[in-house]
Amino acid sequence: MTTPDEVRWLTADQLRAWVGLLSVAELLPAALDSQLRRDAGLTHFDYQVLAMLSEAPGRSLRMTTLAQRTSATLPRLSHVVERLEGRGFVVRTPDPDDARATRAYLAEPGWDTLVAAAPGHVVNARALVIDALTDEQVSQLESITGALLARLDPEDRLARRG
Amino acid sequence: MTTPDEVRWLTADQLRAWVGLLSVAELLPAALDSQLRRDAGLTHFDYQVLAMLSEAPGRSLRMTTLAQRTSATLPRLSHVVERLEGRGFVVRTPDPDDARATRAYLAEPGWDTLVAAAPGHVVNARALVIDALTDEQVSQLESITGALLARLDPEDRLARRG
Repeated sequence: MTTPDEVRWLTADQLRAWVGLLSVAELLPAALDSQLRRDAGLTHFDYQVLAMLSEAPGRSLRMTTLAQRTSATLPRLSHVVERLEGRGFVVRTPDPDDARATRAYLAEPGWDTLVAAAPGHVVNARALVIDALTDEQVSQLESITGALLARLDPEDRLARRG
Repeated sequence: MTTPDEVRWLTADQLRAWVGLLSVAELLPAALDSQLRRDAGLTHFDYQVLAMLSEAPGRSLRMTTLAQRTSATLPRLSHVVERLEGRGFVVRTPDPDDARATRAYLAEPGWDTLVAAAPGHVVNARALVIDALTDEQVSQLESITGALLARLDPEDRLARRG
Protein backbone atom coordinates (compact mmCIF):
# COMPACT_ATOMS: atom_id res chain seq x y z
CA MET A 1 0.00 0.00 0.00
CA THR A 2 1.45 3.34 -1.05
CA THR A 3 0.78 6.19 1.35
CA PRO A 4 0.30 9.74 0.02
CA ASP A 5 3.65 10.87 1.50
CA GLU A 6 5.53 8.29 -0.55
CA VAL A 7 3.84 9.07 -3.86
CA ARG A 8 5.84 10.86 -6.51
CA TRP A 9 2.97 13.02 -7.79
CA LEU A 10 3.20 14.12 -11.42
CA THR A 11 4.93 17.42 -12.22
CA ALA A 12 2.98 20.04 -14.17
CA ASP A 13 4.69 18.97 -17.44
CA GLN A 14 4.00 15.31 -16.80
CA LEU A 15 0.39 16.02 -15.89
CA ARG A 16 -0.21 17.88 -19.15
CA ALA A 17 1.21 15.01 -21.20
CA TRP A 18 -0.80 12.47 -19.16
CA VAL A 19 -4.08 14.35 -19.53
CA GLY A 20 -3.40 14.83 -23.24
CA LEU A 21 -2.83 11.13 -23.73
CA LEU A 22 -5.97 10.19 -21.77
CA SER A 23 -8.05 12.60 -23.84
CA VAL A 24 -6.70 11.20 -27.12
CA ALA A 25 -7.29 7.63 -25.91
CA GLU A 26 -10.88 8.57 -25.16
CA LEU A 27 -11.70 10.58 -28.28
CA LEU A 28 -9.80 8.81 -31.07
CA PRO A 29 -11.59 5.42 -30.92
CA ALA A 30 -14.98 7.15 -30.85
CA ALA A 31 -14.05 9.30 -33.86
CA LEU A 32 -12.89 6.26 -35.85
CA ASP A 33 -16.05 4.38 -34.92
CA SER A 34 -18.24 7.25 -35.97
CA GLN A 35 -16.78 7.60 -39.50
CA LEU A 36 -16.80 3.87 -40.19
CA ARG A 37 -20.37 3.38 -38.94
CA ARG A 38 -21.60 6.26 -41.03
CA ASP A 39 -19.73 5.47 -44.26
CA ALA A 40 -19.29 1.70 -44.18
CA GLY A 41 -21.77 0.28 -41.65
CA LEU A 42 -18.88 -1.13 -39.61
CA THR A 43 -17.66 -0.44 -36.10
CA HIS A 44 -13.93 0.20 -35.76
CA PHE A 45 -13.68 -3.19 -34.06
CA ASP A 46 -15.47 -4.85 -37.04
CA TYR A 47 -12.96 -3.12 -39.32
CA GLN A 48 -10.02 -4.38 -37.28
CA VAL A 49 -11.34 -7.95 -37.34
CA LEU A 50 -11.75 -7.87 -41.13
CA ALA A 51 -8.34 -6.19 -41.57
CA MET A 52 -6.53 -8.77 -39.38
CA LEU A 53 -8.09 -11.61 -41.39
CA SER A 54 -7.28 -9.92 -44.71
CA GLU A 55 -3.57 -9.81 -43.81
CA ALA A 56 -3.32 -13.41 -42.57
CA PRO A 57 -2.18 -16.31 -44.79
CA GLY A 58 -5.26 -17.76 -46.51
CA ARG A 59 -7.24 -14.82 -45.07
CA SER A 60 -7.85 -16.98 -42.03
CA LEU A 61 -6.92 -17.12 -38.33
CA ARG A 62 -7.80 -19.20 -35.32
CA MET A 63 -10.31 -17.38 -33.15
CA THR A 64 -7.87 -17.41 -30.22
CA THR A 65 -5.19 -15.72 -32.35
CA LEU A 66 -7.69 -13.23 -33.75
CA ALA A 67 -8.74 -12.39 -30.17
CA GLN A 68 -5.11 -11.66 -29.25
CA ARG A 69 -4.49 -9.52 -32.31
CA THR A 70 -7.60 -7.44 -31.70
CA SER A 71 -6.96 -7.33 -27.93
CA ALA A 72 -10.45 -8.69 -27.31
CA THR A 73 -11.72 -11.39 -25.00
CA LEU A 74 -12.87 -14.54 -26.79
CA PRO A 75 -16.55 -14.04 -25.77
CA ARG A 76 -16.52 -10.48 -27.11
CA LEU A 77 -14.84 -11.54 -30.35
CA SER A 78 -17.24 -14.49 -30.77
CA HIS A 79 -20.20 -12.16 -30.44
CA VAL A 80 -18.83 -9.78 -33.09
CA VAL A 81 -17.79 -12.57 -35.48
CA GLU A 82 -21.26 -14.12 -35.16
CA ARG A 83 -22.70 -10.81 -36.30
CA LEU A 84 -20.18 -10.54 -39.18
CA GLU A 85 -21.01 -14.14 -40.15
CA GLY A 86 -24.70 -13.23 -40.29
CA ARG A 87 -23.82 -10.54 -42.83
CA GLY A 88 -21.84 -13.04 -44.92
CA PHE A 89 -18.49 -11.32 -44.21
CA VAL A 90 -16.85 -14.13 -42.25
CA VAL A 91 -17.20 -17.94 -42.10
CA ARG A 92 -16.30 -20.05 -39.08
CA THR A 93 -15.33 -23.73 -39.30
CA PRO A 94 -13.58 -26.25 -37.03
CA ASP A 95 -9.81 -26.00 -37.47
CA PRO A 96 -8.64 -28.85 -39.78
CA ASP A 97 -5.53 -29.25 -37.59
CA ASP A 98 -7.37 -29.29 -34.26
CA ALA A 99 -11.09 -30.00 -34.20
CA ARG A 100 -11.45 -28.39 -30.77
CA ALA A 101 -10.34 -25.04 -32.22
CA THR A 102 -12.35 -22.75 -34.48
CA ARG A 103 -10.99 -20.83 -37.47
CA ALA A 104 -12.47 -17.68 -38.96
CA TYR A 105 -12.17 -17.05 -42.72
CA LEU A 106 -12.70 -13.74 -44.48
CA ALA A 107 -15.40 -14.33 -47.11
CA GLU A 108 -15.55 -12.43 -50.41
CA PRO A 109 -18.28 -9.98 -49.29
CA GLY A 110 -16.20 -9.22 -46.18
CA TRP A 111 -13.12 -8.56 -48.35
CA ASP A 112 -15.15 -6.30 -50.66
CA THR A 113 -16.57 -4.38 -47.71
CA LEU A 114 -13.10 -3.91 -46.22
CA VAL A 115 -11.64 -2.74 -49.54
CA ALA A 116 -14.51 -0.27 -49.95
CA ALA A 117 -14.13 1.02 -46.36
CA ALA A 118 -10.34 1.40 -46.36
CA PRO A 119 -9.98 4.66 -48.34
CA GLY A 120 -12.38 6.59 -46.09
CA HIS A 121 -10.73 5.18 -42.99
CA VAL A 122 -7.27 6.25 -44.19
CA VAL A 123 -8.55 9.73 -45.06
CA ASN A 124 -9.87 9.95 -41.49
CA ALA A 125 -6.63 8.63 -39.97
CA ARG A 126 -4.75 11.34 -41.88
CA ALA A 127 -7.22 14.10 -40.98
CA LEU A 128 -7.28 13.29 -37.27
CA VAL A 129 -3.70 12.16 -36.64
CA ILE A 130 -1.04 11.87 -39.33
CA ASP A 131 -1.52 15.16 -41.14
CA ALA A 132 -1.73 16.98 -37.78
CA LEU A 133 1.89 16.02 -37.08
CA THR A 134 5.27 16.84 -38.60
CA ASP A 135 7.38 13.96 -39.93
CA GLU A 136 9.55 14.37 -36.85
CA GLN A 137 6.55 14.08 -34.56
CA VAL A 138 5.36 10.94 -36.39
CA SER A 139 8.76 9.43 -35.68
CA GLN A 140 8.62 10.56 -32.03
CA LEU A 141 5.12 9.08 -31.70
CA GLU A 142 6.38 5.74 -32.95
CA SER A 143 9.17 5.71 -30.32
CA ILE A 144 6.85 6.87 -27.54
CA THR A 145 4.11 4.33 -28.27
CA GLY A 146 6.79 1.63 -28.57
CA ALA A 147 8.01 2.46 -25.04
CA LEU A 148 4.46 2.47 -23.66
CA LEU A 149 3.54 -0.83 -25.33
CA ALA A 150 6.56 -2.48 -23.74
CA ARG A 151 4.77 -1.74 -20.44
CA LEU A 152 1.15 -2.19 -21.56
CA ASP A 153 1.69 -5.27 -23.73
CA PRO A 154 4.91 -6.89 -22.49
CA GLU A 155 4.17 -10.18 -24.28
CA ASP A 156 3.80 -8.32 -27.56
CA ARG A 157 0.44 -9.93 -28.31
CA LEU A 158 -0.51 -7.06 -30.61
CA ALA A 159 2.79 -7.13 -32.47
CA ARG A 160 1.36 -7.98 -35.84
CA ARG A 161 -1.72 -5.86 -35.55
CA GLY A 162 -2.26 -3.55 -38.55
CA MET B 1 -16.38 9.71 -52.21
CA THR B 2 -12.67 9.00 -52.25
CA THR B 3 -11.56 6.33 -54.70
CA PRO B 4 -8.59 4.07 -53.93
CA ASP B 5 -6.45 5.74 -56.60
CA GLU B 6 -6.80 9.12 -54.90
CA VAL B 7 -5.98 7.90 -51.39
CA ARG B 8 -2.66 8.85 -49.90
CA TRP B 9 -2.03 5.52 -48.13
CA LEU B 10 0.15 5.68 -45.03
CA THR B 11 3.89 5.19 -45.43
CA ALA B 12 5.59 2.43 -43.41
CA ASP B 13 6.72 4.98 -40.78
CA GLN B 14 3.29 6.52 -40.51
CA LEU B 15 1.65 3.11 -40.28
CA ARG B 16 3.88 2.09 -37.37
CA ALA B 17 3.07 5.28 -35.46
CA TRP B 18 -0.65 4.87 -36.23
CA VAL B 19 -0.79 1.23 -35.11
CA GLY B 20 1.19 2.13 -31.99
CA LEU B 21 -1.24 4.89 -31.10
CA LEU B 22 -4.28 2.66 -31.70
CA SER B 23 -2.81 -0.06 -29.50
CA VAL B 24 -2.09 2.40 -26.68
CA ALA B 25 -5.60 3.87 -26.98
CA GLU B 26 -7.00 0.38 -26.63
CA LEU B 27 -4.82 -0.95 -23.82
CA LEU B 28 -4.27 2.09 -21.57
CA PRO B 29 -7.91 2.69 -20.53
CA ALA B 30 -8.36 -1.02 -19.74
CA ALA B 31 -5.18 -1.06 -17.64
CA LEU B 32 -6.29 2.01 -15.66
CA ASP B 33 -9.73 0.50 -15.13
CA SER B 34 -8.29 -2.75 -13.93
CA GLN B 35 -6.07 -1.22 -11.21
CA LEU B 36 -8.77 1.14 -9.93
CA ARG B 37 -11.44 -1.57 -9.80
CA ARG B 38 -9.14 -3.92 -7.92
CA ASP B 39 -7.69 -1.43 -5.44
CA ALA B 40 -10.43 1.19 -5.01
CA GLY B 41 -13.69 -0.32 -6.27
CA LEU B 42 -13.95 2.43 -8.91
CA THR B 43 -13.96 2.36 -12.69
CA HIS B 44 -11.60 4.82 -14.36
CA PHE B 45 -14.68 6.77 -15.44
CA ASP B 46 -15.92 6.89 -11.80
CA TYR B 47 -12.48 8.18 -10.82
CA GLN B 48 -12.59 10.88 -13.48
CA VAL B 49 -16.07 12.02 -12.38
CA LEU B 50 -14.95 12.30 -8.74
CA ALA B 51 -11.70 14.03 -9.76
CA MET B 52 -13.49 16.62 -11.95
CA LEU B 53 -15.87 17.46 -9.08
CA SER B 54 -13.00 17.65 -6.58
CA GLU B 55 -11.26 20.31 -8.67
CA ALA B 56 -14.36 22.47 -9.29
CA PRO B 57 -15.28 25.47 -7.12
CA GLY B 58 -17.46 24.25 -4.26
CA ARG B 59 -16.70 20.67 -5.43
CA SER B 60 -19.73 20.97 -7.67
CA LEU B 61 -20.57 21.14 -11.39
CA ARG B 62 -23.66 21.19 -13.53
CA MET B 63 -24.32 17.77 -15.00
CA THR B 64 -24.03 19.19 -18.53
CA THR B 65 -20.57 20.63 -17.74
CA LEU B 66 -19.49 17.41 -16.03
CA ALA B 67 -20.58 15.49 -19.14
CA GLN B 68 -18.42 17.72 -21.34
CA ARG B 69 -15.38 17.45 -19.08
CA THR B 70 -15.59 13.67 -18.95
CA SER B 71 -16.44 13.44 -22.67
CA ALA B 72 -19.57 11.42 -21.84
CA THR B 73 -23.11 11.66 -23.11
CA LEU B 74 -25.57 12.96 -20.53
CA PRO B 75 -27.45 9.61 -20.32
CA ARG B 76 -24.22 7.71 -19.68
CA LEU B 77 -23.08 10.24 -17.09
CA SER B 78 -26.50 10.20 -15.38
CA HIS B 79 -26.34 6.43 -15.08
CA VAL B 80 -22.87 6.54 -13.49
CA VAL B 81 -23.71 9.44 -11.17
CA GLU B 82 -26.83 7.61 -10.01
CA ARG B 83 -24.64 4.68 -9.03
CA LEU B 84 -22.14 6.99 -7.27
CA GLU B 85 -25.06 8.68 -5.48
CA GLY B 86 -26.25 5.26 -4.27
CA ARG B 87 -22.84 4.77 -2.66
CA GLY B 88 -23.03 8.18 -0.96
CA PHE B 89 -20.17 9.63 -3.05
CA VAL B 90 -22.16 12.28 -4.93
CA VAL B 91 -25.36 14.27 -4.31
CA ARG B 92 -27.55 15.74 -7.06
CA THR B 93 -29.84 18.73 -6.56
CA PRO B 94 -31.64 21.21 -8.83
CA ASP B 95 -29.31 24.09 -9.73
CA PRO B 96 -30.13 27.11 -7.49
CA ASP B 97 -29.53 29.41 -10.49
CA ASP B 98 -31.65 27.43 -12.95
CA ALA B 99 -34.20 24.93 -11.63
CA ARG B 100 -34.29 23.09 -14.98
CA ALA B 101 -30.61 22.19 -14.56
CA THR B 102 -29.13 19.64 -12.16
CA ARG B 103 -25.90 20.06 -10.20
CA ALA B 104 -23.73 17.27 -8.85
CA TYR B 105 -21.81 17.78 -5.57
CA LEU B 106 -18.91 15.67 -4.34
CA ALA B 107 -19.93 14.37 -0.88
CA GLU B 108 -17.40 13.70 1.89
CA PRO B 109 -17.32 9.89 1.37
CA GLY B 110 -16.66 10.52 -2.34
CA TRP B 111 -13.80 12.89 -1.48
CA ASP B 112 -12.34 10.36 0.97
CA THR B 113 -12.57 7.59 -1.63
CA LEU B 114 -10.86 9.76 -4.26
CA VAL B 115 -8.07 10.76 -1.86
CA ALA B 116 -7.52 7.10 -0.94
CA ALA B 117 -7.51 6.01 -4.61
CA ALA B 118 -5.21 8.74 -5.94
CA PRO B 119 -1.82 7.39 -4.78
CA GLY B 120 -2.33 3.97 -6.39
CA HIS B 121 -3.59 5.58 -9.58
CA VAL B 122 -0.52 7.84 -9.81
CA VAL B 123 1.80 4.90 -9.18
CA ASN B 124 0.07 3.13 -12.07
CA ALA B 125 0.25 6.20 -14.34
CA ARG B 126 4.01 6.35 -13.68
CA ALA B 127 4.55 2.62 -14.15
CA LEU B 128 2.64 2.43 -17.43
CA VAL B 129 3.43 5.79 -19.03
CA ILE B 130 5.49 8.51 -17.37
CA ASP B 131 8.43 6.47 -16.10
CA ALA B 132 8.62 4.64 -19.44
CA LEU B 133 9.54 7.93 -21.15
CA THR B 134 12.46 10.35 -21.01
CA ASP B 135 11.74 13.95 -19.99
CA GLU B 136 12.18 14.89 -23.64
CA GLN B 137 9.60 12.31 -24.70
CA VAL B 138 7.14 13.58 -22.08
CA SER B 139 7.51 17.02 -23.60
CA GLN B 140 7.10 15.61 -27.15
CA LEU B 141 4.00 13.71 -26.03
CA GLU B 142 2.46 16.90 -24.71
CA SER B 143 3.03 18.65 -28.07
CA ILE B 144 1.78 15.66 -30.08
CA THR B 145 -1.40 15.17 -28.05
CA GLY B 146 -2.00 18.93 -28.20
CA ALA B 147 -1.88 18.78 -32.01
CA LEU B 148 -4.21 15.76 -32.10
CA LEU B 149 -6.72 17.30 -29.69
CA ALA B 150 -6.95 20.38 -31.91
CA ARG B 151 -8.42 17.96 -34.48
CA LEU B 152 -10.31 15.60 -32.16
CA ASP B 153 -11.71 18.25 -29.82
CA PRO B 154 -11.70 21.51 -31.76
CA GLU B 155 -14.06 23.21 -29.32
CA ASP B 156 -11.70 22.39 -26.46
CA ARG B 157 -14.46 20.87 -24.37
CA LEU B 158 -11.95 18.81 -22.40
CA ALA B 159 -9.66 21.77 -21.82
CA ARG B 160 -9.94 21.77 -18.07
CA ARG B 161 -9.97 18.04 -17.65
CA GLY B 162 -7.47 16.78 -15.04
